[in-house]
Parts: sequence; structure tokens; C-alpha cells
Amino acid sequence: MIKISLIFLLALSIYPAYPQQIPWGEMKLKSPDYNENDSTVILRIEAPHAKNVMVDGDFTKGHPLPLHQHTNGIWSVNIGKIPSDLYTYHFIVDGVKVNDPSNAYVVRDNNILENIVIIPGEKGSRYEVSDVPHGSVTTTWYESAKLGSPRRLVIYTPTGYEKDPDKRFPVLYLLHGLGGDETSWSGKGRISQILDNLIASGSVEPMIVVMPNGNSPQQAAPGENREGMFVQPTSKLPFEGGAFESSFPEIVSFIDSNYRTLSDKAHRAIAGLSMGGMHSRAISMNNPGMFDYVALFSPAIDPMFGDVHSIYDHKQHKLQEQYRQSPTLYWIGIGKNDFLYDVNTANRALMDSLGLKYDYHESGGGHTWSNWRDYLCIILPKLFNKKVNIHSK
Amino acid sequence: MIKISLIFLLALSIYPAYPQQIPWGEMKLKSPDYNENDSTVILRIEAPHAKNVMVDGDFTKGHPLPLHQHTNGIWSVNIGKIPSDLYTYHFIVDGVKVNDPSNAYVVRDNNILENIVIIPGEKGSRYEVSDVPHGSVTTTWYESAKLGSPRRLVIYTPTGYEKDPDKRFPVLYLLHGLGGDETSWSGKGRISQILDNLIASGSVEPMIVVMPNGNSPQQAAPGENREGMFVQPTSKLPFEGGAFESSFPEIVSFIDSNYRTLSDKAHRAIAGLSMGGMHSRAISMNNPGMFDYVALFSPAIDPMFGDVHSIYDHKQHKLQEQYRQSPTLYWIGIGKNDFLYDVNTANRALMDSLGLKYDYHESGGGHTWSNWRDYLCIILPKLFNKKVNIHSK
Repeated sequence: MIKISLIFLLALSIYPAYPQQIPWGEMKLKSPDYNENDSTVILRIEAPHAKNVMVDGDFTKGHPLPLHQHTNGIWSVNIGKIPSDLYTYHFIVDGVKVNDPSNAYVVRDNNILENIVIIPGEKGSRYEVSDVPHGSVTTTWYESAKLGSPRRLVIYTPTGYEKDPDKRFPVLYLLHGLGGDETSWSGKGRISQILDNLIASGSVEPMIVVMPNGNSPQQAAPGENREGMFVQPTSKLPFEGGAFESSFPEIVSFIDSNYRTLSDKAHRAIAGLSMGGMHSRAISMNNPGMFDYVALFSPAIDPMFGDVHSIYDHKQHKLQEQYRQSPTLYWIGIGKNDFLYDVNTANRALMDSLGLKYDYHESGGGHTWSNWRDYLCIILPKLFNKKVNIHSK
Repeated sequence: MIKISLIFLLALSIYPAYPQQIPWGEMKLKSPDYNENDSTVILRIEAPHAKNVMVDGDFTKGHPLPLHQHTNGIWSVNIGKIPSDLYTYHFIVDGVKVNDPSNAYVVRDNNILENIVIIPGEKGSRYEVSDVPHGSVTTTWYESAKLGSPRRLVIYTPTGYEKDPDKRFPVLYLLHGLGGDETSWSGKGRISQILDNLIASGSVEPMIVVMPNGNSPQQAAPGENREGMFVQPTSKLPFEGGAFESSFPEIVSFIDSNYRTLSDKAHRAIAGLSMGGMHSRAISMNNPGMFDYVALFSPAIDPMFGDVHSIYDHKQHKLQEQYRQSPTLYWIGIGKNDFLYDVNTANRALMDSLGLKYDYHESGGGHTWSNWRDYLCIILPKLFNKKVNIHSK
């Protein structure tokens, strides 16, 4: 039996000004609207006075799709059957960027807010919350003496971490790209869903994943730092080449003294995308005894701007020194259409000339989160797993 | 010296389709634009083809303000000098709800996404990230046998929690209202900023704050549960009166066995807003030995709909039993314009007739987050502080 009081109905009737935190019923429109029978997706927006409505997103590949106007002021587009994955999108209504008012799910990346949708299927299922044990995601802070401020970290701990005070875990340090921050991998990167699902499947070792902010002048993600919310996210770019990379051992030290880690090289990995790939390469070659596992996703190779720090000097010598300590995995992945393809070809030629072995994965596509999530799913089963390594081939 | 490579410029030139995670410079418009000299705020949006642009937000109190069109397609409004606080807002462009494209900062509450802005000053400074030691915020899961599923929690731990494995902390359980979820207090409620700032000031005891999901049919916030993102946030309302409340001891037990708590009544508090105030009242009166501190913010009193569970029966007897165990603080706060004002007057009359003492705070305003954040800042210094209690008056 459902009882609804007069007071509750009264509360609804005086919305919108007051009260807050009262539900105001179903959204008028369903968008995105997924059809299970034919796996197509319809997007909708009510814009009765608009002359032109389009949608731009990962699935439009740079060519926004027009929506069609119906007589009731609703615009819609059937984007058809697109491959299972996580996509981002927004509408453009008469030239104004509009997040889908019917879709409360968004991710912020840099200063851009995008709606997200997961298309069911094999890839999508990696990124969905499943009926498996869940790990925890913590935002915390460490003090950087080298960078002169407290800095924010996002940390994934696997299910059971809190429960057993004697158990220790290996650690993956996972770095974002230019324009990103410590929240990139937990947002667009779906780190907690990917890890929960893969650990539950038994194919991946339970591990701690540490996601620092790799922009040296920025202590935390936009809105989460002392600069407040009137400062636009792009105002501070990581223009100090090498500063974050050279401060990195402070993070390892903080994690090893505050979390129950297995604190040796055999249980430590580093991976990153784009600028974070560049960071991973530089940090690992400057700390040859630190990581047994290195993975570079669409990596930049050398700094493209900023003062180039000595951390990028003598790289042939440093790479050889790193390989003398026999890393278990050195993995490089890049898409055929990536704008960094050529610098990666040159870097691989350098490594080949030095006789340094690595795993190479060449995918389709370009410099995209779809690829980076893919690469992560490929390397995770190889981490902390002695059966898979570059020397056993 | 700044070096910018050709490759980086090329990367920028081929935006928007590819690559991702490259910054694309300053936003064209500054919005919100705060003027430090006269403390006014200008909001702006570019909408060259629009006929009508308005802004609706906490500061418009139900009467959206028109923006004025300039010749360059930019619309703007000076919202004047408004009291220091955190406000939410969105634009309405020719009838379409539009989040401010120049403001990347939003909070989701239920199925509504709103931009946020903090107006500097006394209240605003409580909600800003300050140069003080920061605690951690963790999302984790517990298993509810009574509700039959894993359920998600947000947990604030104070600075230093990870560092000292012998130190134990008191716990505040902090509950959301109808339409909210476990993320409400860490989003609109600014829990981590408020606690960081007040603990650093020395006026508040370091404590753990536990924020569960109080909607019994919903295991986690929208988008974070197994139902995925095609299910609209409002589709499952907490229509099972009493189910969450009666399962509550499971949460206390999970927290006490997974976190370093002071696990007695003297170090346990419960507070909540609206429905969460109703939950706090019911949970504390049904578990009279559990909490020494109870605080109700604009509370609903009895369930307004749903099957009313036995947890709401015999309330006079239960309240008297609770008071026999001498709670240190029983606090009730409500705004003069709150639609729940009358049921609270009746409830206070009941408590008065039974001789049960409580602290009563009557504020201006209504059923708003501005009030709830205020109430939290008022009660925090009273928690786990024996000098301030209802029996010492």
C-alpha cells in the first residue's frame, strides 16, 4: 500500500524555488534511449524554438550529426548501431553547446563537460558496474617538498583491502595526459569498474592503483585546489618540463608509508597515456630499480615544450641502465592514426638499435580514450604475473 | 625558455575530432566573472541566434533573471552583490536548460545537473579548498544482508588517518534527503572542505564521517549501480518505509570493523537533512544505546508515503527510552519558511510534553542546501565535545 501525504504533494506543487532535494518525477524525455532489440540508440532534446540541432561526440568522428525536428518541439536522431564502448557527446542547439538535459551522466575533462553513454556489449561490459565485489576509490593528499605544496591523488584499493590488515598488494602508478588531472582515469578511464570486473574474473591480480596529478604547477584538479572556481581549468598547463617527473619518488614514498604495499620493484608498475606515457618512460629510466613493469599508451616521447629538465638527458644510457635491471614488461601501444605515431616509430627504432626488447601493440584509431581504456585492459593481466614477460619469449 | 613543437601545434590544429586530452586554450568567455572590487558577479553565454536567455538558480528564488543581448552574440547579466554562499544555477536558452558552457563546475543532485559558484566571504570560505591539511574521501561498499545487496558509502577520514595506525576516531553518520544519495553531502554538501577547514581551525574534533545511501531500493547513486545509465535516476524512490532505517546497524558494524573507530555511544553521532532527519530520528530512537549525538536538519518526522514499518511505531515510548540513556546532544534546526515547519512544531510539542530537552535552532529561509550546510557548521563544534550538551544548561 502506498500512502502519499498532502504535505508531500504540497511540496511538489511549490517547486521550483523550494524545496530542494525532493524528486520531481521522471524526466519528460528518454535520452539516450537504447533499443535492446536492434542495439540502436536514439538521442532526444526538446527545443521548440530552435532552428538547428546537432550532436557531436566520439561516435560522430568530427562530423556532427543533425537531429530531426518533430511537430511537438522534440528533436531526435537515431545514431544507429555503433560498436560497444563508452562514448561522450553533447548537443549543439543553434550554435550553443548543450549537455543532454535528460542525461544526468557527465564527465569533466579539462574544462569540457561531456555527457557519457555506455553502449552494451563486450567492451561496454568492462566499463559498467557489475554484480562483483567492488574496490574503494579514495581521494587523498601528499606533501611534495620538491613541488612545494600538498598535492591530490586518486587511489583505487581492491575489495578486501580494509578488511585484512596483514595483506599487502602490488601497486600500479597510472598517469594522465596533457589537459587531464588526477581524476581522468577514475572518470573517463573507468578505472574502478575495469579493475573490479577484471579482478573478479580472476585474470588480474588484486592491486592498488595510484593516480597522481602530473601537472607540476597544479596541486589538484580544477575546482579541487586553492585557486577556487573562478580560475579557468586551462590557465595552468604543465609548462615545467621534468618537475613532476623528478618529484615522483616522493609519491612512491608516500604510498609505501601510508598504504599496505609490496614495496619492491617486482611489485611496482607504471603506465600512462600521452604526456603520462612520456612521464612513465622518463620516471622509469631515471629510477631503474623502481619498476618491473612499464607501459606507454600513445606516448609522447620527449617534452614538446617547457624547459627540458635534465631528467630527459642521456636517455640512451639511462634506458640501457634500466634494461640491465631486467624489467619484466616494457609495453608500448599506439593507434595507426595517432599524431604521435611517427615519434613512436623513431623511439622504437632507437630501442631496437640498442637491443632493448619491448612488447608492441598497434591498434586502429588515434589518440583516444577508447584506445587508452583498451590498452589498460590489455596490460592489466600482464602485471605482477611472471608467466608473461618480455624475456620469456 | 618555452619551446613549443610543431607536433603540438599540429595536434591543436586538428581538434575537435582528435586528439583527446590536449588542452584547447582559454574558454572564450569568462563566466561566472567575479569582480573583487564591488563583489558582483556577471554571467555570460554566447547564443547569437537566441531570442530569449534567462538564468535560474538559488539566487533567483524562483524568478529567473533575463540576460541582455550584446551585438556580438554574447548575452550577459550582472546578478549584483549576493550574500557569500555556494549557489547553483543554469541558463535557459529559448526554453532549453543549458549548463554554463564556460563553467566546468557542476553538481548532480537526483537527475538534475547544475553549475555551482562560490561567492567569496565568510560563508563561502567554509566551502572553499583552503591551505590547510586535507582529509581523504573514499567511496566504498558494504554488504547488506537485510537489503540483499552490496551498497555504496562515501567516507571522510580526517588528515593523518592513514599515517597513525594506532589512533582511533569518533564517527558522524550523515544522511541525505529524498532525491539525494550517498554523494549528496560530498557534492552540494561540501563535506570535505567544511571538515578540513573546521578541523584545521581547532574548533572541531577530527572525526570520520560516513555517508550511506538511504534509498533502500537503490544500492548506489545513479550511474554507480548495476542498473547502468539508461535507467533514469528518479525511477527508484525510497518507497519502502523503514527498510533502510532497520538495516542501519549493519552499516555501523561494517564501519567499526573496517575503520579505526571509537566504537561506543559517546563517540557516535547521527545527523541528516529532510528524509535523512526522519531517518536519524527513527534510527536513534530504535537504537537508544547507539548515539550520544543526534541532529535533525529540516527533518521530516514520520514517513509520508510507503509502507510504514514498525520502526515508526511506539515513538513516545522509544524517545523516552532513548532519553533515559542521556544523549549528550539532541539538536533540531529548521527554517521559518520550510514546508515542514508545522510538522516540526508538532513534534517539538510532543517532545516538550514528554519533558525531553533538545537544542532548537530556527533560521530564515526554507528547505535548502544553504541552510543544511549552515546547520552542519553549527553542530560540528558540538560533537564529541562534553562541554556543550543539553544537560549542562
